[in-house]
Amino acid sequence: MPAKPTPYWDYIKVEQLLSLQTGIGDGPLGNDETMFIVVHQIDELWFKLILREMVTVRDLFARAHVPEQALASAARGVRRMETIVRQLTSHFELMETMTTRDYLAFRDKLIGASGFQSAGMREIEILMGLPEEDRISLGHEGSYQNALKHHDGSESTALRRVRDRLADTPTLRDAVLAWVFRTPIQGSAPSGADDAARVRAFIEAYLGTQQRAVERVLEASRAQAHTLSEADVKRLEARAIGEIASARGYLLAEELPEAERPRASRIRAALVFIESYREVPLLAWPREVIDALTSFEQAFVIFRQRHARMVERMIGRRTGTGGSAGVDYLDSTALRYRVFRELWAVRTLLVRAQDLPPLEHADFYGFAGG
Amino acid sequence: MPAKPTPYWDYIKVEQLLSLQTGIGDGPLGNDETMFIVVHQIDELWFKLILREMVTVRDLFARAHVPEQALASAARGVRRMETIVRQLTSHFELMETMTTRDYLAFRDKLIGASGFQSAGMREIEILMGLPEEDRISLGHEGSYQNALKHHDGSESTALRRVRDRLADTPTLRDAVLAWVFRTPIQGSAPSGADDAARVRAFIEAYLGTQQRAVERVLEASRAQAHTLSEADVKRLEARAIGEIASARGYLLAEELPEAERPRASRIRAALVFIESYREVPLLAWPREVIDALTSFEQAFVIFRQRHARMVERMIGRRTGTGGSAGVDYLDSTALRYRVFRELWAVRTLLVRAQDLPPLEHADFYGFAGG
Amino acid sequence: MPAKPTPYWDYIKVEQLLSLQTGIGDGPLGNDETMFIVVHQIDELWFKLILREMVTVRDLFARAHVPEQALASAARGVRRMETIVRQLTSHFELMETMTTRDYLAFRDKLIGASGFQSAGMREIEILMGLPEEDRISLGHEGSYQNALKHHDGSESTALRRVRDRLADTPTLRDAVLAWVFRTPIQGSAPSGADDAARVRAFIEAYLGTQQRAVERVLEASRAQAHTLSEADVKRLEARAIGEIASARGYLLAEELPEAERPRASRIRAALVFIESYREVPLLAWPREVIDALTSFEQAFVIFRQRHARMVERMIGRRTGTGGSAGVDYLDSTALRYRVFRELWAVRTLLVRAQDLPPLEHADFYGFAGG
Amino acid sequence: MPAKPTPYWDYIKVEQLLSLQTGIGDGPLGNDETMFIVVHQIDELWFKLILREMVTVRDLFARAHVPEQALASAARGVRRMETIVRQLTSHFELMETMTTRDYLAFRDKLIGASGFQSAGMREIEILMGLPEEDRISLGHEGSYQNALKHHDGSESTALRRVRDRLADTPTLRDAVLAWVFRTPIQGSAPSGADDAARVRAFIEAYLGTQQRAVERVLEASRAQAHTLSEADVKRLEARAIGEIASARGYLLAEELPEAERPRASRIRAALVFIESYREVPLLAWPREVIDALTSFEQAFVIFRQRHARMVERMIGRRTGTGGSAGVDYLDSTALRYRVFRELWAVRTLLVRAQDLPPLEHADFYGFAGG
Repeated sequence: MPAKPTPYWDYIKVEQLLSLQTGIGDGPLGNDETMFIVVHQIDELWFKLILREMVTVRDLFARAHVPEQALASAARGVRRMETIVRQLTSHFELMETMTTRDYLAFRDKLIGASGFQSAGMREIEILMGLPEEDRISLGHEGSYQNALKHHDGSESTALRRVRDRLADTPTLRDAVLAWVFRTPIQGSAPSGADDAARVRAFIEAYLGTQQRAVERVLEASRAQAHTLSEADVKRLEARAIGEIASARGYLLAEELPEAERPRASRIRAALVFIESYREVPLLAWPREVIDALTSFEQAFVIFRQRHARMVERMIGRRTGTGGSAGVDYLDSTALRYRVFRELWAVRTLLVRAQDLPPLEHADFYGFAGG
Repeated sequence: MPAKPTPYWDYIKVEQLLSLQTGIGDGPLGNDETMFIVVHQIDELWFKLILREMVTVRDLFARAHVPEQALASAARGVRRMETIVRQLTSHFELMETMTTRDYLAFRDKLIGASGFQSAGMREIEILMGLPEEDRISLGHEGSYQNALKHHDGSESTALRRVRDRLADTPTLRDAVLAWVFRTPIQGSAPSGADDAARVRAFIEAYLGTQQRAVERVLEASRAQAHTLSEADVKRLEARAIGEIASARGYLLAEELPEAERPRASRIRAALVFIESYREVPLLAWPREVIDALTSFEQAFVIFRQRHARMVERMIGRRTGTGGSAGVDYLDSTALRYRVFRELWAVRTLLVRAQDLPPLEHADFYGFAGG
Repeated sequence: MPAKPTPYWDYIKVEQLLSLQTGIGDGPLGNDETMFIVVHQIDELWFKLILREMVTVRDLFARAHVPEQALASAARGVRRMETIVRQLTSHFELMETMTTRDYLAFRDKLIGASGFQSAGMREIEILMGLPEEDRISLGHEGSYQNALKHHDGSESTALRRVRDRLADTPTLRDAVLAWVFRTPIQGSAPSGADDAARVRAFIEAYLGTQQRAVERVLEASRAQAHTLSEADVKRLEARAIGEIASARGYLLAEELPEAERPRASRIRAALVFIESYREVPLLAWPREVIDALTSFEQAFVIFRQRHARMVERMIGRRTGTGGSAGVDYLDSTALRYRVFRELWAVRTLLVRAQDLPPLEHADFYGFAGG
Repeated sequence: MPAKPTPYWDYIKVEQLLSLQTGIGDGPLGNDETMFIVVHQIDELWFKLILREMVTVRDLFARAHVPEQALASAARGVRRMETIVRQLTSHFELMETMTTRDYLAFRDKLIGASGFQSAGMREIEILMGLPEEDRISLGHEGSYQNALKHHDGSESTALRRVRDRLADTPTLRDAVLAWVFRTPIQGSAPSGADDAARVRAFIEAYLGTQQRAVERVLEASRAQAHTLSEADVKRLEARAIGEIASARGYLLAEELPEAERPRASRIRAALVFIESYREVPLLAWPREVIDALTSFEQAFVIFRQRHARMVERMIGRRTGTGGSAGVDYLDSTALRYRVFRELWAVRTLLVRAQDLPPLEHADFYGFAGG
């Protein structure tokens, strides 16, 4: 209890906060530019909150043993991250109350200032686990880190924050996958002597049912003779064969170097396992966490696509202030930047409940007192 | 053009901004409290934007002559204010990701800090034109301005801002109504020698059609004999008579002292006139402005009611940190604080297009080149 | 697998569906009236979905033993109900694209037709468990069921649906509370010989900590000497004493007849217990269910308040087509209709984690294999 | 006034409506499938409303003379269309309360039924004016109309509706552009003898200012020497030259056959003119209409992208029930289907207010009585 009460304005630091919208130069700012600055400031504040929640969730999953009772709060943390991303997404509608002509009135001043210089956004991507090699170039040479240097080439605080974040490992992705890797599959833990064989048996049983599901759909599609030409049928057959082969290749991680396959394969099988038997108590919260992460990344993609729509509406197809290709660049990153690729990929392989292989060791997954 | 480009972080003042979430005392803050602080900071930033737009719109309508071509931009300014209020409203969903138990973990620190100490919110109410005498007491003695004093009773910056705003007249309400007052009604301007008579003629014609509309509805209701008892019918009749009398009383401003009636009556007639003949070019933008203001105030009421729901969910019915009665207080202000009362009141009097008195001097309301 | 594929239009019954917007009489309908009809049809469809989910959740909790693994899906069902209520709420914005004047163009036709005649809405209230005696009269004599009779007084299908629903027991409220009643408190089940004593011990321990929390807040408020008069301090003290007494009265269910107290008291204690120790695995899903129900009812209140705002905007304060007092009636039901009163009431009593009495028999609440 | 009042359930046709969710076959439906059917039914109802509004707006702009006082209501109609598209977009969140596994439980039944068989969606695209040649093939041979045939190849009602709509001309796009074509530019109407020369003079003046704006931005970018390599600077220069050339090519419609250029060029110049001088009374409502159409198409693109996200979340990357390539197909149509290309294209050319050529004949664009 403080000796004397702190008023709201000191707690929230209202006056300092409201003194930060001065922009560049000495002149007074118009309403449009003030809004432009404020929205970006609010974005940075939301980024800060997302980063804090993400660090907390990451730290939890980075532990050698993740206590089950922490999962509900981890899921809640991820859902909060998603709720904040939705706040960010809703800003675009506000920005669009500014017309192109009015934005252009102050855009010249921003030539050197671009949203690409937001350390917060870069930190989120880094901490989530976006691989550096997946980044799409901004349209001019040099890495995105160059955009964070001072005019004279020296290091900015923004660049330092980004570099610190690159060193702040593991990423959320790595931490979560390390935890997923340890999921008991059909009652078998990675430490078990016969774990590899038992996981493989689960994978084979699962692939069998997945194959039958694809074939069933193909059969039904063939029945639509009237709308399909022979070439159509051939194409559908080829696609079905492809889906069956992809499922196998994916669950066995065949696209990876041999040494990395067992771990990747176990992670993918665990994701299928959690989603398939999600009702059993021990899997219910892991499933919530996985679902929350999927939902969070989905919200992030929606945010990126909505961003592209706002930019297209505001300035059309002209070159971005950061020198990028503008709208096309934003649409590309929305579709190509994806961190939790395994979470998305397994959705293609899921089958309906009645086709699942039976769950083994069901009692292992229950409650003590339930 | 600046001599050297300003980077994003200087333009947005990112580092200063992100250093303001320290709360009270020395210890590190948890995620919940950081979110609590950030959301309130963002609220204050949104308030600032609303105030800026409101000043601009107020200044426009405070002019002796409001140029017609400024109305589209005024309407856009008010719509922006509404969009910001929706942003504010969406924060509650985020706040609710914090549980009661977790909020209580730091609530003690806030005893002296209350949302009632937000100068921004008070300034919005004042600038809009909420009459001081309509304010509902916070639950303890003394005016809301007392809550803005320092611990030792001295004046805070917050209090100074509120007092400055009280002196910053006219209010938006007064400025808008002064402009509405000058609306040509059936081609007659307030400066016209026979304006009072022509306005009165319009009012009488309008009241005649309103009376017939109420009677028509009553007749139709009477036809539902089966679900109505005799007492029901009597009650509906009494209500119809009341609606007819209210309409007359309202348009003639009979509840006011005699000296104030002509002006108030002309304003109310003008609002009915604008809404009724809104298609004619000269009235189309005034009608947009009126509609935008109505929509803005509606959004504000929705914000207040949603606020009450969030507080009820977070802390139930306990006493607020500001010492107020909590949820009930918030629900009361939502229903009773209303600034543009005339705009809401005329909605009760409107009639369908086919029943309107004919528009006189229609050419006066058209385009030069159209 | 069907012998031949069913096309989309037969599956969705598109043509039948699109033939139902004919309104009353023979003439073609305008866009506004068509929208008005369609929105109400969509409302009815959403109501149907809510009712189906609610029946499923009710059936689950009506079972003598609710399997733990069904709780995640029950929580998801309730969250879906909430998501649908949000859809309903978003319709009002669309309705408001119609102006008062344009609504009035066809309103006369609707004198005999009122939203109060929606069986779906009444069924939702009944199945949730709104007590009949809590209903606020529509403004004319006779129960809400009268409004569901045909013109000639005979029974309509709508009335039959409402009566069937009244017979369809238990309500969701009763089913959920029966399940909450069985919650193990500090390891003690209702069937235990000493359960009453152990529950009472928990309640007393909890009330002790609640009392200290209220006193702590009072102490801190007193420190704000500058803004408080002596009368203010007295009022705060009285309120604190009231909060302490209320908490005791509530947890011991003292407002009820003696015979009903033990059961009600155990339910209320269980709600406090679940929320307080929500992290332990056995309580994590019950807590999710409780939270989802709270969130659902909150969404419903928001829906009602938003409804009042739309009606006020569309027709002002005139009498509703159903003969009700219109906006005031809607605002009253929003604030007074509350089904899960216990869920809301306990929020007032919660304390921060560090003040909780220690959890006993923690192992009982854990996982078998965790 | 009807002889006897019609109750709500007859007006809304509640019972018929609620009998249409039977799906395929005889068995009872689960909640998930019922929701799936209901959401698609609601989609069809929203489509119907969009089509009705679109026909009304199209009919207005198809007139040889569009009365100025109809523009506010046209803008409101388009904004209503947008609001409905937002309703459609919000359904995806509800659909996502269904898990992949639960959707798969009934997906087999839908092999022959695909959203591609929604006549309503196709009609909207057709009436808006999506060129047939811009359509992306569904992934199998034959046009999208084939998907609307019955199993035995005969014509369905859906196909008939689509063909009727193809014959229902002009499209919204054509009607609007015909109206835009007639916009007075610098006081000159298309019927004026020297209109071509005066429009060309406006275009040249405008291109001059646009060129200076591009050069100014390039200059400022060059000042950022530290982050740019020589190759970067060359790329920016090339892009600037390209932007200047594109602007000229676009406003002169150089990509079109010579015969079509004058009309297209005048339309494009008119769009630039309206947006640039939007404050003058005669242009204020045209600008609102243009802005509403842009906003509507933006909402439609957002709807398509959100649709892709929902499908990806529900079924991953598997083949769609209509035999399409699924998510990739949906993402492609979102980015490539664009109807009001001119409205989007001019955004790239706009300049700030202070750089605009002076408005000529300003009095022509004012009010008679203003």
